[in-house]
Amino acid sequence: MIAIDWGTSSFRAWRLDDAGRELDRRSAPLGILAVPDRAFAATLATQLADWLAIDTGAVLMSGMIGSRQGWTEAAYAPTPAGADALSENLARVTLADGRDGWIVPGVITRDASGVHDVMRGEETQILGVLDALGPGTHRLCLPGTHSKWVTVRDDRIASFATHMTGETFALFAQHSILARTMPPAADELDTAAFDLGVARSGDGGGLLHHLFGIRAQVLAGALAEAQTRDTLSGLLIGHECHAASTGDAVVHLVGATALTIRYERALAQLGCSVRVHDPDAALAGLTRVASARGLLGASPA
Amino acid sequence: MIAIDWGTSSFRAWRLDDAGRELDRRSAPLGILAVPDRAFAATLATQLADWLAIDTGAVLMSGMIGSRQGWTEAAYAPTPAGADALSENLARVTLADGRDGWIVPGVITRDASGVHDVMRGEETQILGVLDALGPGTHRLCLPGTHSKWVTVRDDRIASFATHMTGETFALFAQHSILARTMPPAADELDTAAFDLGVARSGDGGGLLHHLFGIRAQVLAGALAEAQTRDTLSGLLIGHECHAASTGDAVVHLVGATALTIRYERALAQLGCSVRVHDPDAALAGLTRVASARGLLGASPA
Repeated sequence: MIAIDWGTSSFRAWRLDDAGRELDRRSAPLGILAVPDRAFAATLATQLADWLAIDTGAVLMSGMIGSRQGWTEAAYAPTPAGADALSENLARVTLADGRDGWIVPGVITRDASGVHDVMRGEETQILGVLDALGPGTHRLCLPGTHSKWVTVRDDRIASFATHMTGETFALFAQHSILARTMPPAADELDTAAFDLGVARSGDGGGLLHHLFGIRAQVLAGALAEAQTRDTLSGLLIGHECHAASTGDAVVHLVGATALTIRYERALAQLGCSVRVHDPDAALAGLTRVASARGLLGASPA
Repeated sequence: MIAIDWGTSSFRAWRLDDAGRELDRRSAPLGILAVPDRAFAATLATQLADWLAIDTGAVLMSGMIGSRQGWTEAAYAPTPAGADALSENLARVTLADGRDGWIVPGVITRDASGVHDVMRGEETQILGVLDALGPGTHRLCLPGTHSKWVTVRDDRIASFATHMTGETFALFAQHSILARTMPPAADELDTAAFDLGVARSGDGGGLLHHLFGIRAQVLAGALAEAQTRDTLSGLLIGHECHAASTGDAVVHLVGATALTIRYERALAQLGCSVRVHDPDAALAGLTRVASARGLLGASPA
């Protein structure tokens, strides 16, 4: 079979044998926003022409390809949601050669106030770390543009909350009054600057006040302009962790290393320990859904 | 004398008689960012040529004209700061005709964590409402791009905190994922949408989570796209008021009506009553500083 993680900014594909073992992989900067005229069938056929010529197994996709802006909308499955529920609600599309393709649905939840939250793509990554988590209740954080904090209970996504941390960082670093004096992104984290931001997030006064404080500290000569980028990062991640992680002893992190080292550092200030998981969990999640649906080693369903 | 409120986006001037009574006024969209090559002396001479020809009194300015990007930097005065302290620390500039001009300093404060906050321009507006406040301790809010929450004690600015609420609103309304489906600004406030945002600000989960909730509610069909602008406004103003106004029975609002009606509405949900002051308080503040310095009815000091 062929598994595809097709997100906003990238296209990643794996070819698997009947036991779910990886035979080949490839990727391209062809996220759904980079595909003109929503020509998803043609793009897939071009990218994987050689695989499709020799592999008659299922084609299973996850990510923003299942959003309203993607190939077809795969309706959100409600929490609690595990591999069974997701595999039963795959959306069907028609590939360029007439075969069926399948898309994993996103997940929707509601909090005590009745306010909804949604994920799309992360549900597959979460399924990919279930084996490492085991039974019981676990708290996960998938940091990113829209960070997800997830409660997993007995192999199901029980509830979750999204924090707009990465997007807020980008907005302030690019367009705000803080941007005027902010240094460009550096490879190495300024840990002292980052820790200042995390520490500030534990004070009263609120995020909107703390954001201005970065500007005021520079004007007062109490913070170097060179430190403002990582202080902003620490402040926002600190606010996210304070709001999301109340009382968690261990948080399971699933994400790129550049981000997980920041979250590990911030959570340590809050007295939380972390366990960092393989950031490449999407493949394991797609395999789990395929297995639940009986797509592994099978002809198209 | 001539009093000038010279901010980032506008230039407003008044001519006063020796008793501080207004003789004339004018304004122009010549904020300091609109003055090429920092030609402030020439701009002032051109805008007020007729006044300067007949008025030999002092020229007193306040606002961003005293910032690093302005005519000259008027160093911040520390809290507590009243008309006396501000009038003793005016910065001097030389007008085109060789006379002196004077600029009111901004104010700087530090909180219990040692983090600084600054204001420039608002100190003059605050001085302008002191007569209406009277002695004792008062809480003021000056809403705007960078909202100021101020404690005034016995005619002095005792402490204050800035909230980046207006700027954050603009960033999210223009550049975020919420901007994609946000309606253009309307003349009339959608009070139901605004109240939803304020109510949400009282829930747990944090601002970064609540921001994403606007997007999720739209995707779930629980919020109309047309409501997202005023819900965002209510959410941000609500977070500001929750963080800033703990326990205030009465908040004195100084600002444009379009904003004060929103703050009055949000504060009512928090059980706070408000008293709305003349938004045009800068002139009264400049007059108060001029009087403290002996500039009213006097030749240049």
